[in-house]
Amino acid sequence: MKVFVGTLVHSTGEIFMQVRQAALGVQGEKIIFVEDAAKLNELKEKHNFPVSSIVNLTSSQFLMPGLVDSHVHASQFPNIGLHMDLPLLEWLEKYTFPTERSFSDLKVAQEVYPRVVDRMLRNGTTTASYFATVHLAATKVLAATAAAKGQRALVGKVNMLMNCPENYREESVEESLRETEEFISYTKSLKSPLVQPIVTPRFAITCPENQMRALGDLASKHKCRIQSHLCESKAEIEMVKKLFPEFPSYTHLYHAMGLLTDKAIMAHCVWLDDEELQLLAEKRAGVSHCPNSNLNILSGHCNVKRLLQHDVKVGLGTDCSAGYSPSVLDAMRRALHVSCSVGMEHTKDHVLTPAEAFHLATLGGAQVVSMDDCIGNFVVGKEFDAILVDVEAPDSPLDIYEQASI
Amino acid sequence: MKVFVGTLVHSTGEIFMQVRQAALGVQGEKIIFVEDAAKLNELKEKHNFPVSSIVNLTSSQFLMPGLVDSHVHASQFPNIGLHMDLPLLEWLEKYTFPTERSFSDLKVAQEVYPRVVDRMLRNGTTTASYFATVHLAATKVLAATAAAKGQRALVGKVNMLMNCPENYREESVEESLRETEEFISYTKSLKSPLVQPIVTPRFAITCPENQMRALGDLASKHKCRIQSHLCESKAEIEMVKKLFPEFPSYTHLYHAMGLLTDKAIMAHCVWLDDEELQLLAEKRAGVSHCPNSNLNILSGHCNVKRLLQHDVKVGLGTDCSAGYSPSVLDAMRRALHVSCSVGMEHTKDHVLTPAEAFHLATLGGAQVVSMDDCIGNFVVGKEFDAILVDVEAPDSPLDIYEQASI
Ligand SMILES: [Zn+2]
Ligand SMILES: [Zn+2]
Repeated sequence: MKVFVGTLVHSTGEIFMQVRQAALGVQGEKIIFVEDAAKLNELKEKHNFPVSSIVNLTSSQFLMPGLVDSHVHASQFPNIGLHMDLPLLEWLEKYTFPTERSFSDLKVAQEVYPRVVDRMLRNGTTTASYFATVHLAATKVLAATAAAKGQRALVGKVNMLMNCPENYREESVEESLRETEEFISYTKSLKSPLVQPIVTPRFAITCPENQMRALGDLASKHKCRIQSHLCESKAEIEMVKKLFPEFPSYTHLYHAMGLLTDKAIMAHCVWLDDEELQLLAEKRAGVSHCPNSNLNILSGHCNVKRLLQHDVKVGLGTDCSAGYSPSVLDAMRRALHVSCSVGMEHTKDHVLTPAEAFHLATLGGAQVVSMDDCIGNFVVGKEFDAILVDVEAPDSPLDIYEQASI
Repeated sequence: MKVFVGTLVHSTGEIFMQVRQAALGVQGEKIIFVEDAAKLNELKEKHNFPVSSIVNLTSSQFLMPGLVDSHVHASQFPNIGLHMDLPLLEWLEKYTFPTERSFSDLKVAQEVYPRVVDRMLRNGTTTASYFATVHLAATKVLAATAAAKGQRALVGKVNMLMNCPENYREESVEESLRETEEFISYTKSLKSPLVQPIVTPRFAITCPENQMRALGDLASKHKCRIQSHLCESKAEIEMVKKLFPEFPSYTHLYHAMGLLTDKAIMAHCVWLDDEELQLLAEKRAGVSHCPNSNLNILSGHCNVKRLLQHDVKVGLGTDCSAGYSPSVLDAMRRALHVSCSVGMEHTKDHVLTPAEAFHLATLGGAQVVSMDDCIGNFVVGKEFDAILVDVEAPDSPLDIYEQASI
């Protein structure tokens, strides 16, 4: 047993950023108590732990839940910081598909993926939902890497068949299903408590109807989560309308394909109309808000407050490399600023508070990746998935002044 | 003499981010040559320096001009990261004036200002244009601190007389002038090659006409630079119209007061109409663009491309603490994202390139603070005001991958 005594910061769901002086007991991986720090002596008697189990945080330290990156392309990390000059569809064609294609060489995966996971962990991202590439072997490397390095991860082999380069796509629906199922089996065979497979149709533009339906069935058969992109840019939505004219909307299309489950993570959702929003809320699908990406490739300003007001689950995604920062802290800051832009267009009510951004990055993210039963905040029975922050660490970017006004 | 051999990155004015392999010679504080690295042997003969003068940069290092923060409130650093919930005028009243008022206690200045300058230097900001407070004694501390720590700085005692708290303002126009002149003399008496005074009427709302005119005259008499705020928020502009109805615009008002000189730094300029923009361009006054601040307190999206197209000098400001980051790198990122928002409202032509953001942070900033004759890029005769960046420094936030697409 370990007992941490000091400042805890987390979202309770009702209070988006609760700060309390607490004693938190951990046995194995699980939180077994969270009480006011004043009750430490009582707790010692009740749980019978020695003084040597106690870890006292300093006054400049606090514990918070690990950050959740609910949408990130591990295979695009080599392009981070590059190529911000094109909108979505052209950007995919010119920069992104060629980089992803290079993962047909297993050595690329073996070199890139360990660095990706290291960087994410260093940034405090203890949980990530990854897009890999279409390549089965390379995607296995990502799953094994996350398991070995101890990151909680959903890993998806990307499914795509049409409207993409001949030299970078799956061969057929059959092959797509066979390899995806093999990836699911492989990931389960790792027997990692942290890493799970996720069914990953890239987006409607690259997936014919029979593929999407089959992937929806596969996810249902294996009780897998699903991730995709939805309503990111206007040009994308126009193209989906042309490709699938018989469906009332992009969101309705995914629903009809069996992809809009309560375990689905839909990235972006910038341009949902009211009916789509309604459907998403009903089905309890989650939204990964990726503000850095939405700005860079001029997709739009997502109105997160509108999503929250409709009781939709929302978390944050870095969406590297359309987003240029692999840090959820950056995503929090961008989410705040995008909400300021939305607030200037509409009213001040649409501006997120820092506490709301904190919630999105932790418990909100856990909800979106359907893991809020075991991570996201400090609640008895959940796993102790946490990061220790010290605002006075050497080289801290923060200065604490006594003179701050109230 | 020192001769740096390796990668230089700077704005030439025509090329916003030139990257070259060069040999750069420094004698005293001055750059005496910048040539292609291949000419090193030739240069050795011509300038007769020993091998021991040569500093070879590694392949992961480059030199760039020091960053210029053309608008920042040193006295507001205690509030950084706090209080983002109100628009400009209410924010001043509730949070900012009370914090600034605390500098009537000299001990506050002695504690805060050294940390401010340290933080700025650590962030690579070798040049800053500071607002201090109305307090003469405290403002002297800031000037002396910058001189002692070796930061190039313009330091301004803030002038304000009306529409501000009784316990935080100057007493009279006479006192304002006397103390400002004393501050100018004091700063000159430091005989620092780096630190100069700047005349700092806070903005039109706090300065009656006779004060603004007198300060314009004072700046002219002492050949001082001038800094103020201009067209930051719509509510502010409305109030200026009410206070000074006889002037055609906010910008025309400053012009009539003698404040719109070619050595003036005008922060924000979010809402200039075409005539104001024309006047600003004609008078060669510079604009400090403060995107972080403009987002936080919902001032607006400044269209920087529009300013540049009218040949206005533009640099970047962190505007701490309305901006929450004391880093010009952050200001570069925010400027890019604000321009993405502007681009989504208008057309893609309004989006800044990373190279343009780099220019704004260096040579653009030097132009705005009227120091481009001596800093801002690597040109023979200018001072060697530079920072060394190593993308592979321990704890670097960057990962360099070989697999990046072209
Ligand atoms: Zn994505
Ligand atoms: Zn300001």
